[in-house]
Amino acid sequence: MDNNIFPNQSIKPIDTKINQKGNIEISGCDLVELAKEFKTPLYVMDKKTLLKMALDYKEAFSSYPKTKMLFASKALMTGAIAQILNSVGFGFDVVSMGEIYTLLNAKINLKNTSFNGNNKSIEELEFALDNDIDHISVDNFYELKILNEIAKNKNKVQKIHLRITPGIECHTHEYIQTGQLDSKFGFDLSMIDSAIELILNEYKNLNLVGLHAHIGSQIFETKVYEDAAKIVLEEIKRIKDKFNTELSEINLGGGLGITYTKEDNPPSVFEIAKIIINSINSNCERLNLEKPMLYIEPGRSLVCSAGVSLYTIGSIKEIENIRKYIAVDGGMADNPRPSMYSAKYSAEIANGKKENKPEVVTVAGKFCESGDILIKDIELNQPNSGDILCVYDTGAYCYSMSSNYNRVLKPAMVLIDDGKAKLIIKRQTLEQLVQNDVI
Amino acid sequence: MDNNIFPNQSIKPIDTKINQKGNIEISGCDLVELAKEFKTPLYVMDKKTLLKMALDYKEAFSSYPKTKMLFASKALMTGAIAQILNSVGFGFDVVSMGEIYTLLNAKINLKNTSFNGNNKSIEELEFALDNDIDHISVDNFYELKILNEIAKNKNKVQKIHLRITPGIECHTHEYIQTGQLDSKFGFDLSMIDSAIELILNEYKNLNLVGLHAHIGSQIFETKVYEDAAKIVLEEIKRIKDKFNTELSEINLGGGLGITYTKEDNPPSVFEIAKIIINSINSNCERLNLEKPMLYIEPGRSLVCSAGVSLYTIGSIKEIENIRKYIAVDGGMADNPRPSMYSAKYSAEIANGKKENKPEVVTVAGKFCESGDILIKDIELNQPNSGDILCVYDTGAYCYSMSSNYNRVLKPAMVLIDDGKAKLIIKRQTLEQLVQNDVI
Repeated sequence: MDNNIFPNQSIKPIDTKINQKGNIEISGCDLVELAKEFKTPLYVMDKKTLLKMALDYKEAFSSYPKTKMLFASKALMTGAIAQILNSVGFGFDVVSMGEIYTLLNAKINLKNTSFNGNNKSIEELEFALDNDIDHISVDNFYELKILNEIAKNKNKVQKIHLRITPGIECHTHEYIQTGQLDSKFGFDLSMIDSAIELILNEYKNLNLVGLHAHIGSQIFETKVYEDAAKIVLEEIKRIKDKFNTELSEINLGGGLGITYTKEDNPPSVFEIAKIIINSINSNCERLNLEKPMLYIEPGRSLVCSAGVSLYTIGSIKEIENIRKYIAVDGGMADNPRPSMYSAKYSAEIANGKKENKPEVVTVAGKFCESGDILIKDIELNQPNSGDILCVYDTGAYCYSMSSNYNRVLKPAMVLIDDGKAKLIIKRQTLEQLVQNDVI
Repeated sequence: MDNNIFPNQSIKPIDTKINQKGNIEISGCDLVELAKEFKTPLYVMDKKTLLKMALDYKEAFSSYPKTKMLFASKALMTGAIAQILNSVGFGFDVVSMGEIYTLLNAKINLKNTSFNGNNKSIEELEFALDNDIDHISVDNFYELKILNEIAKNKNKVQKIHLRITPGIECHTHEYIQTGQLDSKFGFDLSMIDSAIELILNEYKNLNLVGLHAHIGSQIFETKVYEDAAKIVLEEIKRIKDKFNTELSEINLGGGLGITYTKEDNPPSVFEIAKIIINSINSNCERLNLEKPMLYIEPGRSLVCSAGVSLYTIGSIKEIENIRKYIAVDGGMADNPRPSMYSAKYSAEIANGKKENKPEVVTVAGKFCESGDILIKDIELNQPNSGDILCVYDTGAYCYSMSSNYNRVLKPAMVLIDDGKAKLIIKRQTLEQLVQNDVI
């Protein structure tokens, strides 16, 4: 562990500063210049911050050598980002044929890939097996059955994990522990034995090697990880005693939170890793278990802080004594999180200002819907029409959830690195918008 | 007015019945056959229901001959649907270059088109003017300024409306009347005079002909329309007296609600039309005004009831004494309304059943997110893996808000009519998913 600030604990990418022009610069790239060259709205991903976080994850878990890191691709799946993570040893947690296809299209094989999801289709499972996916995290009895048939038809014995709901759920600042969890995902603890009996006795084309438990998203608690590891290992002990088979892999999912605004105070990856590793070590010793292979699936915490979104401010509407609206050229289609989850973001004017005269405004999107408000009541320095607004922490769940609402084109994404910017997702075109229209 | 049930007051499309196989059939098309032929998830639009509602709108307003109907395209913009509405005399309310492009791509000109939105870009406005849009509904001072410059550069005098916030807001069952509305849209009443002075004295390339007021969405109240018409006409009278100019057009927007579940009880379009026309007639008489051209902009109420979504049921998870989850092969990416607005839907199993044994279940989507629940606690008849689920009233704000979350492909859409089904939007392909990826 070093003394650096960890990306998930910081609102801004690592090398963010004000340059001589007074503009915001990240990793040597002037945001105003980026906006000019690539137009707005624009997703910007900083390679240095992304790699720092990826390497922090690896370092944090290095004292537990049997660790595999899988990127939870649903946070941000593009070929270029996948290749960067692949190059530093990350595998992938995928949830659809589309995510698998994107990996293959980027020449990444599936030997470090896990397939998750509560309702994988037969077509998707076949596609995964045809492309030699490492393992499937099986979610339910139906999937066990169809997967066994698919594997049998292909003369394969497919390695699987069972996704379980350990009775823990954690979202943001809330941590619930219940006996039986009301979740669409996974086997609850009472179902596991029936599943294992089926696998051992009937589903001869499935090879159960581990348990998978994902406990939530944007987590600020640490104890929840300690408890999850404990519950999963106690299950492995119970299964060992009852079925005389010791599962050799556990997957504790992801969920580590990030700092969207200065009110957020997530733990660092080193704190989380220490807690998880200590819990595994002490519980393995207590339960007399071999130390299992550990899978960790970071999504948001890995990519979110590396991303910013750039917008151009257009119309401004000031309603005296009520509110000043600053409208940008994007909104709920390129970032649905404020309207979907009431998510909060930090932002700044990216272009230089002579004087510091902050004022409280509301950043509205351009979509024809009252709810399309990106940031309510934020202090910005003299926002004017034509200014470039930089919204921080948009690396996760923005591009991946983006839509064409109002028939607006999905923005481009650039990767910046040491003063250079490279297009990694092209902006959609009008022709693409109608390419599936049949007239 | 006839004695039919009006589409917006009915959960199901007009000709929905159980056929001899026991399957649900709409307009002579067996939904199970459609699912087999076009795969699921599938958007289905019934032409008869769509046309019935379009013609109901025209008939309802026929006693006020100076009415123009504009479809609020953001509810569902595709070339084929636009052509159908165009063929029965509808124009279009558009909110982006993409919507305009889609019309042009379907060989529909813009002579009955109005361009709305709180932050139209210069590029969008130029595109609209270059394609001879009928009028721009100007939202704010910034837009007045840039639009005048654009029109001047093109040697045009552009017809405009001013969008105003009349101090009325109505969502679902709530109706708020306030002195000054906290909205990102439009000029509030205190700003109108300054805007008109600018137009009359400085912005010589703008020709103000009307006022536009849109008061909300999924509206069940009728009085709100009466009040909106009154407020707008009183403004026109005030403007006439002060500026000696009588605006000849008013646009009262859309917003009529529909029946998603049997708890919803919206008025018919005939009730709304009567209230609006009576309000216009009486207020024009009282205020000694010429009867203006009336624009109405239905969106949801025009297309929503004509649409259903078909899904295949996959995994089923029963948590004893808690809940039974039925997972389908779509969810929050093809219909984000339940997760975004807690919207409620009605649904039925489309394939025939021998016995009627309804049970209460929760319909989950396939997306890796706990919030991806399409319908909580709905009674379905013995839902099983492989069954086809028909979700009603998905014609509006489903395809138009759809995303590729989890890298899932956007579904196809078929138009059904008298036993025939025609593909009007092709399903996305895996190749299209990565077509903008730069590796």
